[in-house]
Order: sequence, then C-alpha cells, then structure tokens
Amino acid sequence: MKLCDYIFKRLEELGLGHVFCLPGESVQDLYSSLQKSNLKSVLLSHEPSVGYAADAYSRLRGLGAALISYGVGSLNLVNAVGQAYAESSPLIVLSGGPGMNERKKHFHLHHKVRTFQTSREVFEQITALSIIIESPNNAAIELEKAFQTALKYKKPVYIEIPRDLSHCNIEAQPFLPDFAENIDQEGLEEALNETIDLINSAKNPVILADVEIARIKMQPELLSLVEKSGLPVASTLLGKSVLSESHLQSLGTFFGTLSNPRACKYIESADLILALGTILSDVNLGMFTFNVDRTKMIESKIDGLRVKNHHYPQVTLKDFMTGLLKSEKLKHFQIDIPKVDLSFLSTNVPDEKITSISLQLILNQFLNRANSPAYRIVSDVGDCLFLGQELHLNSISSFLSPAYYLSMGFAVPGGIGAQLADPERRSMVLVGDGAFQMTGLEIISAKRLNLNPIIILLNNGTYATLDRVELDAVPKSYEIGKYEYYKMAEIFGGIGLKVKTTAEFQKALKQAETEYKNEFIIIDIDLQPEDTSKVLNQFGLMMDKSNKASSTKKV
Amino acid sequence: MKLCDYIFKRLEELGLGHVFCLPGESVQDLYSSLQKSNLKSVLLSHEPSVGYAADAYSRLRGLGAALISYGVGSLNLVNAVGQAYAESSPLIVLSGGPGMNERKKHFHLHHKVRTFQTSREVFEQITALSIIIESPNNAAIELEKAFQTALKYKKPVYIEIPRDLSHCNIEAQPFLPDFAENIDQEGLEEALNETIDLINSAKNPVILADVEIARIKMQPELLSLVEKSGLPVASTLLGKSVLSESHLQSLGTFFGTLSNPRACKYIESADLILALGTILSDVNLGMFTFNVDRTKMIESKIDGLRVKNHHYPQVTLKDFMTGLLKSEKLKHFQIDIPKVDLSFLSTNVPDEKITSISLQLILNQFLNRANSPAYRIVSDVGDCLFLGQELHLNSISSFLSPAYYLSMGFAVPGGIGAQLADPERRSMVLVGDGAFQMTGLEIISAKRLNLNPIIILLNNGTYATLDRVELDAVPKSYEIGKYEYYKMAEIFGGIGLKVKTTAEFQKALKQAETEYKNEFIIIDIDLQPEDTSKVLNQFGLMMDKSNKASSTKKV
Repeated sequence: MKLCDYIFKRLEELGLGHVFCLPGESVQDLYSSLQKSNLKSVLLSHEPSVGYAADAYSRLRGLGAALISYGVGSLNLVNAVGQAYAESSPLIVLSGGPGMNERKKHFHLHHKVRTFQTSREVFEQITALSIIIESPNNAAIELEKAFQTALKYKKPVYIEIPRDLSHCNIEAQPFLPDFAENIDQEGLEEALNETIDLINSAKNPVILADVEIARIKMQPELLSLVEKSGLPVASTLLGKSVLSESHLQSLGTFFGTLSNPRACKYIESADLILALGTILSDVNLGMFTFNVDRTKMIESKIDGLRVKNHHYPQVTLKDFMTGLLKSEKLKHFQIDIPKVDLSFLSTNVPDEKITSISLQLILNQFLNRANSPAYRIVSDVGDCLFLGQELHLNSISSFLSPAYYLSMGFAVPGGIGAQLADPERRSMVLVGDGAFQMTGLEIISAKRLNLNPIIILLNNGTYATLDRVELDAVPKSYEIGKYEYYKMAEIFGGIGLKVKTTAEFQKALKQAETEYKNEFIIIDIDLQPEDTSKVLNQFGLMMDKSNKASSTKKV
Repeated sequence: MKLCDYIFKRLEELGLGHVFCLPGESVQDLYSSLQKSNLKSVLLSHEPSVGYAADAYSRLRGLGAALISYGVGSLNLVNAVGQAYAESSPLIVLSGGPGMNERKKHFHLHHKVRTFQTSREVFEQITALSIIIESPNNAAIELEKAFQTALKYKKPVYIEIPRDLSHCNIEAQPFLPDFAENIDQEGLEEALNETIDLINSAKNPVILADVEIARIKMQPELLSLVEKSGLPVASTLLGKSVLSESHLQSLGTFFGTLSNPRACKYIESADLILALGTILSDVNLGMFTFNVDRTKMIESKIDGLRVKNHHYPQVTLKDFMTGLLKSEKLKHFQIDIPKVDLSFLSTNVPDEKITSISLQLILNQFLNRANSPAYRIVSDVGDCLFLGQELHLNSISSFLSPAYYLSMGFAVPGGIGAQLADPERRSMVLVGDGAFQMTGLEIISAKRLNLNPIIILLNNGTYATLDRVELDAVPKSYEIGKYEYYKMAEIFGGIGLKVKTTAEFQKALKQAETEYKNEFIIIDIDLQPEDTSKVLNQFGLMMDKSNKASSTKKV
C-alpha cells in the first residue's frame, strides 16, 4: 500500500471524517491521495484558519488533522498549533517536505528557512512529537507512534513527509504494544482511598469541572458522578457547558470574583475543591481573583492526580473518574443548592439602540426558548468571550472557545470546523471586528462548504478589550476603523444584516433560523467603542491595576 | 531612561521611521511608548501581514521592526520571519512577555504554550539571535547585540520584553566594540588577486547579480563595477532590477532556460560567472534548468567568498565589491551585447478579452512610457511572479518579491510596507486571488494609513500554479471559487474596477494614475483558470516531471 494512501486509511480508522487543508507543491501527492480517499478534504483560505478549524474539529471529534505544505504552510500554522497544545487538543499536522533525494542534491530549495530540520525543530517546541518520515521501512510504525501520542496525551503532533516517499509502498503495522493502557491498580486504589476520605469528611465540598473532561469525552460520567455525589458543580470558562447549566446541581460558570454570585460563593466557601480536568490558568480563575489554596484541592488531570501537595503521576483523569464512580464508599451529600435565576427569560426588552447588555439578554432569551434548535456558541477572544461566558447554556458542550491561550481570529474558522465535526449543531459565532479582520474572510470557505454559521459580529471599531485594560492609553491608538462588514456577505454568497436596535437583533436571529436557515449570515451589530460588558469593565480595571503593579515593581 | 522609551530611541537612531504592529495586553506599555515616540506606529490587521509589511520595509530601508504581543502574536509571525531569514531581511521582532514576577508566581498564564521559553525557542530556529531581556541591568547591551546582529548579518532577530521590565530605568550603553568591522586585509588581497586573475583570463565572463547587493545597498557600486569591467550582467528573479534593465550591459532577468534568450545564452556559454550576492536556489536558477558548475563560479556573499571549491569566509560581499572597484588590475572587457528587444513598446494591442499574455504586454507598455511616474512592482507568489519576472524595469530596485522562500500572501501587506519605506514609489501589487484571500483584507490598513497601492488582482478562481504543476490532479480540487473582490474596495473606502478586456485594463491603469491617484484601487482582472503565463506552462511541465521522477524513485 502506498504511504500516502495508508495515512488517510489509518486516519479514517481512527475516526476522522475530514482533513483540513491548504495544498502546496510539496504536498500534492498527499493532497491527491486525500481527494481519492473516503475522507472529505476541507479547503480553507489561509493556514492560520486551517489550524483553528482543525483544532475546533479535534476538540469535538476527539482527533483532527491539517494537511499543509512545507515551510510556508506549516510555519503559518504555528500559532494555531500552539493553541491546540496549550488547550490539549489532539491535532495531527501533516506537512509535505522536499524529497529525501532533493535534500541530498540541493541545499537551497524553496520554502526552506535554514536547514531541512528547521520546520521540525520549530514544531518540536509546540507539539508532543515532531518527526520527519525518512524511510518507507519504518514509516507505518513512526506514523502510529505519532497518532497514538496525539490520542493518548491530547496534544498536537507534527509529521513531515518528504514528497518522494509519499508514493513508496509500505507495510501496514499492528498497534505498538507500548500504547496499550496499563493501569497501576495499587496506586489508583491508594489515591481513591485518600481522596474519597477527604471528600467524605469535607463540610462544603464542590466540583470544579473543566475542559479535559470533554477531551476524554467523559461528560456522561461527570453527570453520573455529580448525581452520585450530590455535590454542587461549577465549570470554568474553558470548560463551560461540560455539564448542562440547567442541572439542579449546576452553579454555572466560575470566573473568579467576576463570575455569577452562586458559583463564586460556593467555590470561595468550599473546604474542598474537586477539580476535574481543570487548567488552573489566570483567565480560567478570573485573572487570579480567586487564589488557589492547594491544601483544599484535589486536582485530577489527564497527566496525573495531585492531592494537596503530593502527586500521583500514574493516575489519569479517566481512571480516577471511573474509580470514583465505581466506589461504594463515596458518600452522597445533601446540599441544597439555590436554583439558577432564569428571570431573564421573562424580562421585557424595550426597543432601543442595542447595547452589550441588551445584546446578551436577547441572545440568552433566544438560546433558551422551548424547543430551540441546537446551536453551538463558538466564541472568539475579547468582549464576545465575556458576553458568552454569562450565557445560560442548558445543553452539553455547546460552548467552544480558546479561553486559556486566547488567540484572536479563532471563531470564524473554528465555527466551520465545529459544524463539520458535529453537523447536528449550527455554529453561532461570537466575534469582534478586530478578530473578524484576521480570519473573517473564511466566510468564503463556509460558502464553498455549504455551511450556514450565524456570525454575530460585535462591531465597535476598536480593540475594546485593550482599550479597557489600559486606562492611560494614547487616545485613538486602538481604533481599527468602523466598516460595514455585513456587505461582504453579499459578495461571497451569504446574507448580511446590519443591526442597530434591539428589535432588529431579535428579528435578525429569527430570520437566521427561518428564511436564512441554509445560508451563512453575518449579523453586524453596531456598538459604541465605550460600551463593553460588565465583566470586561471590572476585568479591565483589575488587569490595569495588575499591569501597573507589575510594571512599576522593580525586579 | 525607561527601557520602553530607550528601544524606540535607538531604533530611530538606527534609521527607522516606522514600526509595524499589532498590540496586545502583554505589549501595551511598549505600544504606548511607541505612540509617544518619534516613530510612526503602523497598525495592521493580522500578524502574518505585520511580518510581511515589516519585512518589505526592511528590504528597502535596511532595517525593519515588528511589535507584537506574546505567544498569540509572535507565533503568528513565524512564517513571515522565516521568509525574512531565508531572504536575508534584517527584521527586528519585538515581543511582549509576561512579567518576570508573574513568571515566578504563576505557571498557567494566558498566551503560554508550554514553558515561558517556548516562544524564544521557536524563534531561535528562524532568527540569527533570540533573547529574553531578563533584567534592566544588561538590557541596553543585550538590545544592542540584537540590533547589531540584524544589521551585520541581514537576518531577523527576536527580542522578548517581560512587561514588568518595560518601565524600568536603564542606562544607555556605548556601541559594543566587537561590532566594529575589522577587515582581514591579507585574506582580502589574496582573494582579489586570485579572482581578478580568473576574471581577466576568462573568455566569456558574465556577472550574475542578486538580492544581497540590495541588502547592503551597493546598487551604485554594482553599476560602477559593471561599467568598469564592461561585463554583461544578468540579475536573478530574487534580485530583479538590482541594475536597470535598460542599461546597455544588462541581459535582464536570468531564470534558467525559462529566462529571456539573451540572459540564457550568455550565462550558459560563460566560462566564468561572477555571482555577486546570489542565492543559488532552485527557483532562482529556473528550477535547476541551469546546472551550476562550481569550477566556473566566483560566489561573493555577505557571509564569505567561494572560488571554485575553496572558501574565504572572512571576505564579505561589501569588501569584495569595494576591492574590485578599487583594483587597477581588473581588465575592461569589450564584449558586444545585443540590445534588449523593446519592440513590445510599439506592439498594437487589439481590444479583446484579456489574457495573461495581453495583460503582461499592457503592463509592460504602461511601465515603460516616457515620463511614467515611479512605481514599485510588489509581486506575490504564483503566476503573477512569472508575469512580473518578464516585465522590463528600467529603474533600480523597482521589483520586490519573495522569490526564494515563496510565501503566498506577501504582496498586499508588502506593498504597504514598501510604500512607507520609500514614499517616492507607489506600490503596484501583483497578486492572485488565492493569495488575496490570505491577506487581501489589509486594504483596510492601506486605507487607515492613507496609502494608495494599485492592486492588480489576477482572478482565475483557482490555485492555477498548483493545477499546472500537477498534471494528473483530481479535477476541480484546486478551485477556490470566483468572486467579485473589487467590490470589497467600496466597503473599505477605495476604488474597485472589474476588467474583462484589454481596453478596460488600459483604461483602469490610466484612471489609477489620474482620477484615483490618491486612493487604493483594486483592478480585478477576469482570467480563465487554464490561461496561465508561458513561463508557468513550461515551469509546470518541468516541475511535474521532476515531481514524478522523485516520487517514483525509491529512496
């Protein structure tokens, strides 16, 4: 079997349905082979978008792949792959490369930066494994090692295929034994005994659930564990909607002192926090408005369990959650948890100039209608993320955003990747005009792929988040110009609507769901630069304080 | 003096007038300081564009700088910086970073991929120097080392400034002694004696001039050397227009057997090639249609001189060219060089559907009118580069393109950077629709900066170059959709013209120069996917042969 055909056959066996790509001369054989395979090749316009879309896909599907050209392609993917690494998304980067024979004959081949190792060395810094397939003999084993590394550690890997090898015949290989999961039962039992005693003897324990649970697809087990234990559970911004926010034990999203009062109160007053798959990042903890007290923490992660100040590296999140579920010792708590306040559902919205507040309210009401079709919120970075953070989401994994690494430009391509990974949910993209300028042109790809994302564009003509966090910014230095982006939809075969009032926004959402349900649509919302969300305003004040504090502090 | 203010003061002293940027929270103090400095801050929409624009600027100005945020910003700049490295452009990357105190306190800060060293380690692979300023004490020396490295080696450097240091007071430092140029006179004389004997005793010597001459700004010295020696001179695709192509000794652009017959004939039949600042890359040599015979070569480069098979690492291009100019031994050759064929100037263009051939002819006639204003052709990658390659350019350094590394998306932002570096020349951007989809939205930045580039968009709805080099491509697999991009100009405050015929193109060029001389303008040219340049068609056939050859060859 040819190497190029083998790769896509294996990726199909591993559950992929699509490969995101931007072809180039170094990767043409692979690209042709992909066209002929059972996988769908998804063409995007610019490599950063290829990376964001493939990352979003792998977050939902459990694995994603990007096929790009050598150097000019792969190095343009670095930031997106860095984000996948930071947020534990198993993304396989397939890069073309100069032929092994060409490498021997010529030094100055196009697309080469410094040496023929440079691209691989760059990716070594931002992946779990970074390899060049240098011979057909061990190709299958090398590939399998890379695939299994991505799957096991939920991290990206880089595979470079010299173009003169892609047509070589290789022999398929069985799974490598060392990838078989072997559980350290003794260590697991010790860990379970210790942690269950801690939980049982706690007065106000609480669960903090985060994104790694989604990565290992254990949302159902989380639900069972929540109901078995009776504990209140908050999710982080990155893990938002890992549990339905309508669940009676849900406290909604925890975002430090910036979060909703219920989540804040329970987490702050807890004498034990069971953190499941949680990345304790500054943003995830509301810019450290919440200070982690390790003596109160049980942290279970994909790569090990930490109890107070000691560590069980061999106890994975999967084994730990499974163990807790199986355990007969874990006590069921009777904690009365105040119901979530859903009064916003009946709040009357006057018809007036739209603001961040009313935009959020209308969106919240729209998403929480009885029998609303299923949407997935794909949020970019900036105030849209703070707006999204406060939405009430009653279905699981209905929120997607890079809330730890925070790379702007994720959402439009991310919305494309998300919809291909899970066609049951239409993507509702929240994006600011700054991020839209970066990757918004991928509406071209949405059209090409016959996808129908709803793009809610917060158009305020400035980098509002930066403006807000830097109180003594030079005036106008963050202005990016205010344009009528909705008109781009017409050029590229979609629907564009301009929204100035609350009624217009309500109408636009309705139209998106009815008459425009098959087209991509840009709902271009006219906001004032100084009108930002409550959270961002608080956040900004804090950030600015901490900036000033750290700026003025001598090192 | 504060570190942040010192940086921009030094960059101004080093000749910079602009800094290209995309601000972020980690770099706000530096961004504010830039606003208050004498340098102009140039805001672009997406980091890849920041990189391309700053690279183009540094190619023309001798130094360029990009100010971007930590992680999300810098890692999105990697491909553009890789291109700057490959093509010897001294680009200074200024990245923000988490504060030194924050690094000590917290591990999971946003924008971090793996460790706080990751970004620097990535840039270590693609720059001549990659540093984090870790203390105010040696900050000035560290900065100077980085600036001087960029200037001396004409390569990019990476400087990361933790945000809590930018406000620290530092002491200015004198130049570091080790950066003073010290010439090895003995080695230089030996090299000059050997090479001048070789040149003088050659029958058909020829000069092959390339881009490194432009990097060290010795185009005037090249002209003197050409006239002193009487030798015919061809430039490479990357070095195109390093000498006026109207000069009586100019052979125009050499592009292997794909180049114009004059250049081809003289280079092929030469018994000695004096290669000045030449990158002997596959593309520069017409995809190796020309095979380098080292025994006939004298290669002088920024980093040393190679004669046949031995090397003078200490003899730089600058010292070598200066030495040849000063030498009284260098013989003056009497070689009669056939005049360049300018019959195209009087060729009549019938009014018909426009094609690649007529487009090139019209453009060539337009650029070669008597008293035409000064334009700079900024070419992207793809067929536009092959079209541009054959233009007759009678003024120096009037052609700019990444002809070695070949990253698509360079030209629109590159045209912005070029015009800021040299306002005397209006940018005429040659770009395909594929590349325009990548970075074309930077027309927003052109408007914001009140720049007036003429964007000539070759709109054929496909990745034509790839389609041409892969003869057995799966049908339609390279189609990217055909859209009316010229309509984007209206949305973003410029002029958009659609061109279907030769007369419409002639009219559009005229309008761009007269009634629309102050606006950016998109001339959207309707081409058929199968209509590509003569060169690309030959090139494609060859590439395909070599692909197939190397693909089928066993390793």
